[in-house]
Amino acid sequence: MSQTTMSAQALSTRFRFSSRGARLIGQEMFRVLDRAQILERQGHRVYHLELGNPRMAPPVEILEATRQSLEAQQIGYAPMAGISELRAALATRYARFTQEPVSESHVVISPANLLIHQFLDLTCNPGDRVVLFTPAFPSYWAAATHLELEVVPVPFAERDGFQLSHQAIEAALSAKPRAVIVNSANNPTGAVYDPAILRELVARCERAGVWLLSDETYADLTFDGSFVTLAAPRAGHVIAISSFSKVLSVPGFRVGYAIAHEAVAAKLALSNSTLYSCLPAFTQRGCLAGLSVLDRYAAEVRQRNARVTMACHEHITRSGLLRSTKAASGFYLFVDIRHTGLDDMEFCRRLLEEYHTAATPGRAFGEAYRSYVRLATCGAEEDVMEGVGRTVAFAQVLGGCRVQAA
Amino acid sequence: MSQTTMSAQALSTRFRFSSRGARLIGQEMFRVLDRAQILERQGHRVYHLELGNPRMAPPVEILEATRQSLEAQQIGYAPMAGISELRAALATRYARFTQEPVSESHVVISPANLLIHQFLDLTCNPGDRVVLFTPAFPSYWAAATHLELEVVPVPFAERDGFQLSHQAIEAALSAKPRAVIVNSANNPTGAVYDPAILRELVARCERAGVWLLSDETYADLTFDGSFVTLAAPRAGHVIAISSFSKVLSVPGFRVGYAIAHEAVAAKLALSNSTLYSCLPAFTQRGCLAGLSVLDRYAAEVRQRNARVTMACHEHITRSGLLRSTKAASGFYLFVDIRHTGLDDMEFCRRLLEEYHTAATPGRAFGEAYRSYVRLATCGAEEDVMEGVGRTVAFAQVLGGCRVQAA
Repeated sequence: MSQTTMSAQALSTRFRFSSRGARLIGQEMFRVLDRAQILERQGHRVYHLELGNPRMAPPVEILEATRQSLEAQQIGYAPMAGISELRAALATRYARFTQEPVSESHVVISPANLLIHQFLDLTCNPGDRVVLFTPAFPSYWAAATHLELEVVPVPFAERDGFQLSHQAIEAALSAKPRAVIVNSANNPTGAVYDPAILRELVARCERAGVWLLSDETYADLTFDGSFVTLAAPRAGHVIAISSFSKVLSVPGFRVGYAIAHEAVAAKLALSNSTLYSCLPAFTQRGCLAGLSVLDRYAAEVRQRNARVTMACHEHITRSGLLRSTKAASGFYLFVDIRHTGLDDMEFCRRLLEEYHTAATPGRAFGEAYRSYVRLATCGAEEDVMEGVGRTVAFAQVLGGCRVQAA
Repeated sequence: MSQTTMSAQALSTRFRFSSRGARLIGQEMFRVLDRAQILERQGHRVYHLELGNPRMAPPVEILEATRQSLEAQQIGYAPMAGISELRAALATRYARFTQEPVSESHVVISPANLLIHQFLDLTCNPGDRVVLFTPAFPSYWAAATHLELEVVPVPFAERDGFQLSHQAIEAALSAKPRAVIVNSANNPTGAVYDPAILRELVARCERAGVWLLSDETYADLTFDGSFVTLAAPRAGHVIAISSFSKVLSVPGFRVGYAIAHEAVAAKLALSNSTLYSCLPAFTQRGCLAGLSVLDRYAAEVRQRNARVTMACHEHITRSGLLRSTKAASGFYLFVDIRHTGLDDMEFCRRLLEEYHTAATPGRAFGEAYRSYVRLATCGAEEDVMEGVGRTVAFAQVLGGCRVQAA
């Protein structure tokens, strides 16, 4: 055995990482979180706006069902596609919204973040093109980069409120991609797309033989209570994914799901088995209980998010120096910081080190967004307002003064 | 939207899966489990010998700490490398066994099955060779196949008790692999390798610039209480992995860990973040509590496993028709069924359908093992004995009579 530690550089020369290993970029907000937690261990109070980490208490039903499942020692292996009861309950729920039958065989349980990776892994070969409408959730970039895909960014126009348009669909399909990812309600902009335009995207992808991932993680959280899913097991090319993390305030449970053609669902289950065997049964039991109260609970979450996110939007807008999206869903604001004179990395670094406020740099959503940061408004309300206040204060120090009243 | 369901065949023609997607094989024992659970839903009592799914009650400390963590609402995102306390506790534990310091920066928490995949993904490019000493745990095959690697099987000699030998190491290195996987204590044979030979493997891999994964999932469960780890963060090329699933009887928690050079550990953490963000904090809290009683609890598990596994071995051997390994660790028997006249798939299929006893076909451990099945002896003792009894009874029906007394 070696007596001295090999340096990281010597290691990578002697024992090279794979090209995929070299292309791992992770998720920027988890790096911010790691740094924030170091500050916290040093005794600082940190205001967390970097992660969509809801701090509302989850439905008591979830915690109670999880506890009962643990007490019943449901701690063995579970089916690779997820527990049957949860798959069946989701099928019943989605059948309310789709124009077609949905059954247990169309539903696979897996963490939603991993499902992005599993989708791209199942459908794309290295070098294949995947379209991301940008700004786009960092995990899409991380998964596509890791899997050596060519990302074709199709930017939304900010002047149109970052909406999905005919032109964007045209641009997406003209890139001749193998797959397209669409995300309504959107992270980070909070935009909700017109259902007719979404249906056009589904139809255009079908005609072109293009796989479509519909990330619906925030679809249950539109402020007006509307809910649109693109789940369409019959068609075969649409994989709809969602998560219990945001709508039930249990991100740490790591339970999400996909709804897809049964041949795709079978592949996803095999992928589960190959990668990690199965998920815990007791967290799935918890989410099953949460699902039974989802409609009532989501209504509370939407109301809370609409109020807090709007208040933050107004506070930011009043600053005159920062501009922010006016979200219609979820709990994010995508904030334009260009008038501060700093780029996103430097802005976020100093905001964290000097103001103890954690935010996510815009470039995590696409290289073009270096003059943006994302703020999450789902923390404890007082902390969110304090963090947003500090962000505005920092911007004002940078800008010297308020440049224009809103 | 389509009005009729696209057939699976039409789907795969119109919307092709990727080549990796086509190469997903999953884990055979989870397919057996799925079929077994269908029989159970039909009202049959099934004897589960297919999965290493321990049914001993886990330490109460684990369930209690998990419950407390849930009660404290530790249900937000956690650090991508795992919670700091668990990483530090594992570092302290392993420093007892290694000849060198181990710190938190060398430890990453992730499901052990996924760590196999993450290891191969980080270190090997498509087409690279990876050596598996066979018979080898199905997940190695599944991960390597999925990642388009070339598996070089180096078979152990059954007459030597499936032991790691100088010759096997020579054969492994002469294949000029990018990576080697070694698994002592072994699944499925229960063999424990000579520490001197293991050290030779470590040194030979280091000299040849070959990555080495040491899967030590069963190292805490050698019947004689010996414990050998190859963890060697200084050297850089050894990644030791293990799991709480078997030693603490909590397979459904899905918590394992890797100990590696800090540059490798950092890559693994990035892989976690890219793939699935993080694990639940509350399951990690549970395992942290379990770790504090691991030595005492593992001693009980070893004693129980030695007794039950030996009893099963004797019962099988007495049959005259079947031969089985004499395990020195863990809770598996690798059983030679060649005298029954059936191959492994047909034997397992009929054993399940006719005798309601689930076993894993030998070919899941390598194509060469079509005349073997693996039996897991970690279930409830009565059920295990009944399942083994049924396996022997089936073999005797097939063999017509007892061919020779043991």
